Formats: sequence, C-alpha cells, structure tokens
Amino acid sequence: MTFTTADLEKLNAAIAPVAADQIAAAEARQLSLTKPPGALADLETIGNRLCGVAGCCPPPLPDPARVVVFAADHGVYAQGVTPWPQEVTLQMAPNIVAGGAGVNAIAQATGCQVQVIDVGMKQAVPGVTDRRVRPGTDDIAVGPAMSVDEAVAAIGVGVTAAREAVAAGVRCLLPGEVGLANTTVAAALIAVFTGADAAEVTGSGAGAQGEMLTRKQQVVAKAIETNQADAAEPLAALAKVGGLEHAAIVGLILGAAEARVPVILDGVISASAALVARAMCPAVAGYLFAGHAGAEPGIRQASEALKLKPLLDLGLRLGEGSGAVLAVPILRAAAHVLRDMASFDSAGVSEA
Amino acid sequence: MTFTTADLEKLNAAIAPVAADQIAAAEARQLSLTKPPGALADLETIGNRLCGVAGCCPPPLPDPARVVVFAADHGVYAQGVTPWPQEVTLQMAPNIVAGGAGVNAIAQATGCQVQVIDVGMKQAVPGVTDRRVRPGTDDIAVGPAMSVDEAVAAIGVGVTAAREAVAAGVRCLLPGEVGLANTTVAAALIAVFTGADAAEVTGSGAGAQGEMLTRKQQVVAKAIETNQADAAEPLAALAKVGGLEHAAIVGLILGAAEARVPVILDGVISASAALVARAMCPAVAGYLFAGHAGAEPGIRQASEALKLKPLLDLGLRLGEGSGAVLAVPILRAAAHVLRDMASFDSAGVSEA
Repeated sequence: MTFTTADLEKLNAAIAPVAADQIAAAEARQLSLTKPPGALADLETIGNRLCGVAGCCPPPLPDPARVVVFAADHGVYAQGVTPWPQEVTLQMAPNIVAGGAGVNAIAQATGCQVQVIDVGMKQAVPGVTDRRVRPGTDDIAVGPAMSVDEAVAAIGVGVTAAREAVAAGVRCLLPGEVGLANTTVAAALIAVFTGADAAEVTGSGAGAQGEMLTRKQQVVAKAIETNQADAAEPLAALAKVGGLEHAAIVGLILGAAEARVPVILDGVISASAALVARAMCPAVAGYLFAGHAGAEPGIRQASEALKLKPLLDLGLRLGEGSGAVLAVPILRAAAHVLRDMASFDSAGVSEA
Repeated sequence: MTFTTADLEKLNAAIAPVAADQIAAAEARQLSLTKPPGALADLETIGNRLCGVAGCCPPPLPDPARVVVFAADHGVYAQGVTPWPQEVTLQMAPNIVAGGAGVNAIAQATGCQVQVIDVGMKQAVPGVTDRRVRPGTDDIAVGPAMSVDEAVAAIGVGVTAAREAVAAGVRCLLPGEVGLANTTVAAALIAVFTGADAAEVTGSGAGAQGEMLTRKQQVVAKAIETNQADAAEPLAALAKVGGLEHAAIVGLILGAAEARVPVILDGVISASAALVARAMCPAVAGYLFAGHAGAEPGIRQASEALKLKPLLDLGLRLGEGSGAVLAVPILRAAAHVLRDMASFDSAGVSEA
C-alpha cells in the first residue's frame, strides 16, 4: 500500500487543468448580476476561478472545508534555528487534536473541520493519527533530509488524506502543519524553487531574532549548497532540503487537484510545498488560492512565483494552517455571489 | 416620538469610553495562550479591543451580527455624478429585502442578518420598512441637504435601529447603505472632517469616470464652499453636506456604542458617518472596526483619521455594507482565540 514513484507519476498525469470555459462563463454571469460591473473585484476573480476548479458555473460551495495539520520533526532543529524546545511539536499536535490551539479557535469561527496527522514526529503520541514515515528528518545542513522513497511515501500520506477527505464530502482543502524548525526548511525550498537568495526568504518563524536569525539564514544557504538542490528535479530537491510535512502538503495539493477541489494555502510552509507541487505538475496552479500573506518574507516571493494574491494580510505568523482557515469565508462569499445574486433582469433593476 | 437634539445630547453623554482595564487583561491573557507571543498579530489586537468594547475578558462573540442597510436619495444626483439612473435606489432596496443583492450573498456566507430601512428614498416602496424623514435631500451643490431637525430625525432612525437590534440580541452592528450619489456626499463629509482636498477624497463610486469624475470632484468642492461646512459644528455640517443614510449611520454607531456593541465600518459612506459620530462623541472611536479598505480614496483618508486599519482589502466598491459583512468572521475568530484557546499550563506545552 506504500505510495510509489509510479503512483506519483500516474497522479500527476491525471490532474486536468482548470476549466477555462467555465471561468469565461462565470465572467459573463458576473456582468448580469445586480452590481456595477467589477464592483466585487477580487471576490469576482475568486468566484470565477472556483468555477474553473470545479468545472461548473455557478460553483459549488467550498463546504465542508477541512484543514489537515501534518506534524513532523526536523533534523535541522539541531542547528539552533528557533528559540522553542523541540518537544513543542509533540505537545502541540495533541493540543490541536484536543481543540486548544489557534487553528481550532479560528476553525470554530469559520466553520472548518480540523484533522491532525503525524507524518513523522520524533515519536508517536497517543491520540494523534499515526501515518509516520520516519521519526523526523536528518539535518539538511549536513546532508539530505530523507531518501527519495521516503519523500514519495510522505507525499502519499498527503494524497491519501486528500482522497479520504473528498470521499467524506470535503469540498475545500487547507494544508496545515506543526513542526519545530519547519520555516527553515520552507525557506530552503522557496530559495531553490524561486531562485531567490536564502537570506531574502528566511524570516523569524516562531521567534528567531538577531544572531539566531542570521544563523538561520546561513543554515538555509548551507543546506542548499551542501545538497546541490535543483528546481529542475523537484522530487529530489524535496528529499534533499524538504521536510515530511512539506512533502505531505505536496500530496494534499495533488490529491485536491485530482478531485477538482480548491486548496487554500496558508504561510511559508504550504507556499513552499505548492512550489514543489507545481514543479511536478504545472496544472495544479489553477487549484491554488493564497489565504494569507503573513509575516515571513518567503510567502511574498512564493506568492509572486505562483501568481497568487494573498486574500488576507493580518500579520499572522502562527502556522498550523490558521491563515488559510481564516480565508475560507472569502471563498464561500465568492461562491454565494455567483450562486445567489439576482440578475438585472430578474430583479427589475436598471443598468447604467 | 421624534428624536430631538436634546435626545442626541443625552445619548452622546451616556456613551462610555471602552474599558482600558479589560484591554489590558486581554493583552495579558494572549501571552498565556499556546502560541508564540504576538503570533496572531492583528487578530490579537482585534480580540483585545473587543474586550474593551464589551467591558469583559474574554469577549462575547459578535453574534448575531446584523447589517442595517439604510436607503435614501440625494438632490446632488442632479449634478450628473453617476452613470446610473436614480431609480436604482428604489429598485435595489427591494432587491436587498428579497435577498438578491451582493450584500445578501456575502451575508449568507458569513452568517449575518440583513435589514433594510428606508430613511428617505424619493418615494416609498412596498415591502421596504418605512422610516422616511423626507423624500430625498436637496442638492448640496446649491444649498444645505436638509435642516438640522431633519438630520437629527435621521440620526434617530439609526439610533432606533441599533436599540431594536440590541433588544433582539444582536451583538455586532454593521452599517450598510444604498442611495445613488451617496459617495459624492461621503466625499464632502470626509473632506470637511479630515481637512483633505475634495479632489483627493473623491473617487469613481459606482462608475464615474473621466469628465464625470472631474465634475464629481468639482461638485464636492462647491458643496463645501457653498455651505461653509465646518467640522467644529458636526451636526450642522452633516445637515449641510450630508445625506439621510449618512445621518442614520451616525445614529447606528452612537446606538451601538451606547450598548457596548462593536461596529464594523464598510466603505466611504460609513467611514464618513463615523467621522461625524466621533466629532459629536469622541468615545465612539473605541467601538469602531474598519472592515474593508475599498477602492474609494476617501476610505484611506478616513481610516487614517479614525486610526483604524482596514481588515480586508479586496478592491470591493459595491457598498450596501458588503465589505463589513465580509469582515465579520475575522472579529468572530478574534473572539474565539481569547475564549477557546488552551494556555501553556493547561495544555502542557513548553515555552520558549
């Protein structure tokens, strides 16, 4: 049952581009609705894109929406890139299962399901769904994070999570994550896949400041050089400088696109995974929405590369998928506009 | 039962500043919750402010939330400041009552109640709640929009709407509006109350472009000069260059603050009314949240003057309260963070 490279190639080949004809149909429909042309601006663009994703106009609602929080640990933690103890990964995963984390509070407000999957924490934790590929990665500053087979297996965990969610009726997927040092890994992936300088895309994460931030930037640069990570070989690059949750998110994105379900990205971790997924399968780009700009500099670089405009910019830097969860009502509103609004004709409203 | 100047003075005197001690309590509570300090950024600030508004920590949820859409007409329409026929006001008000407008679609997505009140359309429309002060205003380009007594009566319509909503259990109030030419009036109010140049705060509204936009800017400047509107006399200025729905929104804001209920502003119309309300009663400032930045230049000027950072910036220029309605889940999430999140102690999570 392990996910293989052959399975991955088959999946990538099965993903269809979004439906351009349905986007065009939505653009035409917007002009018939009782509002000045273009007055709902980005909300119209989002709604039109949802039609392309689903392949129908008006689009289905993005409900239920589910954030899948992948938990994993990172060998690069040893380089001193975060002020938090590494056991916080093991502590936060069950906190999210119990409903006590930030992502849970926000999901409560926006009507999202929350699921937690251990794809490779240092040890298993009772109560957290165990789909562990290995107990944390190796240190990317001194060698590859994992083998290519392990990266493919972690992608498979994400693909399975997406397929299970869709089978359960989920119609919008949000990648979440918890894993100490995972913004270091995200910065490395973003630098590799955008060509940006390591220092430029490396931020404070959960609190690296001053000397620690400088060290983090150096670690990212060293990881890329040591591993000779190359964007032209995305799977190998993911195995070299990636993380298990980053790989699982690649799988979640591919699985969502396969099922024509929209994906709302959160911060740097999901943005870095999106760059990898798009390098493997360019057609996934049309299924992606950027939920939140966030405080990490790499998100802006990644969003630009993905040609996505983040829907929110509230300075969040929590991770867990929180910024994506907060953006769900915006997609919901965009869908309702196309589904529910009266036309000039039906409402008897005069045009300009 | 008409609202009088004495009633207005009594109401302004009854509005208490937000509770600084509860904001401080919320700031302390945020630091105990399982997240890096400040990681929820603006969401923390909003939650803390909600504690100040309600006078308790954690804060109540902003539910149910209600957008009150005030409909009215404007004499300044005659100056040719919009490409839309004036009867659109009369047509859109029942469209909102019937659930077919943009604000309804967005309210459906975010779980908000929608109410429509005719505070002075050119004529009554069956099915639209009739609290008409007069059939539209006079042309501000040639004289005052209305008498001071009429402005006070329109404020009273808003106060009553707020009091009725709070009595029905509503815990978050959103001003909405429909009224052809009402962005012209909003620009005049914003220019008067911020000291900005008329041209600088006058935008396209529902579609004024080119020569029409230039004329609109000239009309705003002429209205201010003709009426000698003065920010030091806010009630007189409102009567001179305001509108009936702008006045009603002043009342809705004052009534919400009286009941310690938060107000989410939408676009230029509600922002212009907020400037008037704050000039009458500085304590209302603490009850205001800016929902959406919008496309109109005056919103930025008004938000700066009100020291508010808009929560969303999706380019919307629909009005009706749509941008405020879209921001409700953000306040809801901010409240849930303070109400639901586990502490480091209770969840057994290590600190940095």
